Amino acid sequence: MNDQQQLCVKMVLDAWTKEIGATNALLEKLSDEQLMQEVSPTRNRGVYLLGHLTAEHDEMLSLLRFQEAMYPELMPVFMDAPDRTVATLPSIQQLRAQWNAVNDTLMEHMNRLSADEWFTRHANISEEDFPKEPHRDRLNVIVSRTSHLAYHRGQLALLEGK
Amino acid sequence: MNDQQQLCVKMVLDAWTKEIGATNALLEKLSDEQLMQEVSPTRNRGVYLLGHLTAEHDEMLSLLRFQEAMYPELMPVFMDAPDRTVATLPSIQQLRAQWNAVNDTLMEHMNRLSADEWFTRHANISEEDFPKEPHRDRLNVIVSRTSHLAYHRGQLALLEGK
Repeated sequence: MNDQQQLCVKMVLDAWTKEIGATNALLEKLSDEQLMQEVSPTRNRGVYLLGHLTAEHDEMLSLLRFQEAMYPELMPVFMDAPDRTVATLPSIQQLRAQWNAVNDTLMEHMNRLSADEWFTRHANISEEDFPKEPHRDRLNVIVSRTSHLAYHRGQLALLEGK
Repeated sequence: MNDQQQLCVKMVLDAWTKEIGATNALLEKLSDEQLMQEVSPTRNRGVYLLGHLTAEHDEMLSLLRFQEAMYPELMPVFMDAPDRTVATLPSIQQLRAQWNAVNDTLMEHMNRLSADEWFTRHANISEEDFPKEPHRDRLNVIVSRTSHLAYHRGQLALLEGK
């Protein structure tokens, strides 16, 4: 462990925290009515993207080998199925609470991890294969999920003023 | 320099390369006519976002202390001014070419940088102040611009099927 390694881990984690903060600030500004709108005609509704992001972050809990998913029932609705194909969605109020709970739980686990532990494998690669693909570590999960979140935040931002 | 530090730099640069690749694949699918559409009613047009991303990446050339911007004339049109306030925009054909030229030039410089050099200051912080804020290094420019690109790629993706 050296300074630059610690710094690199810090930059990746700070980018995650910043992206979560920006998304939360946006979600606070958006009303439940706005979240029921499509981000663009015929495309996903805000409520679907909120559920999708919550399910994706919930899945990170197991991918990062922290704990089991908190709300596995979100997966078939917001990951496997496209928007408007499931008759009854959870309420936006409930999804907002689950979004916060999942991210808070993730952050608690993340804060407990040492810089070295970020370079250990994520759950989708075995201990045997990991030495051959050392980039498939826990830190890379944060790197890729930060981009995923930014991608959908860009879409959710289009609901402002609707 | 140790293995984990090299790995961390590689993960950040790979995320950038992947995001550029995904954006290029999307831009190839989008026709010039689609790029003239708004990503959502009353919001930015595709052509503006393409110019905006090109101007932002062009600015990275000097921020990363590589070279001067290649197309500084894009800045007032696509960074300082909002969409639809400038009478005449460059053609989409020209913007597509500039987008590719800027990213190719960035990548050439990036490939020449050693892992250690990524942890040196970017151009917006002085040599005197850098030791107090060591996270303001060149690598962090890539981290933040990867999220910025993902944010707008999420919006450009809404033009598919329009």
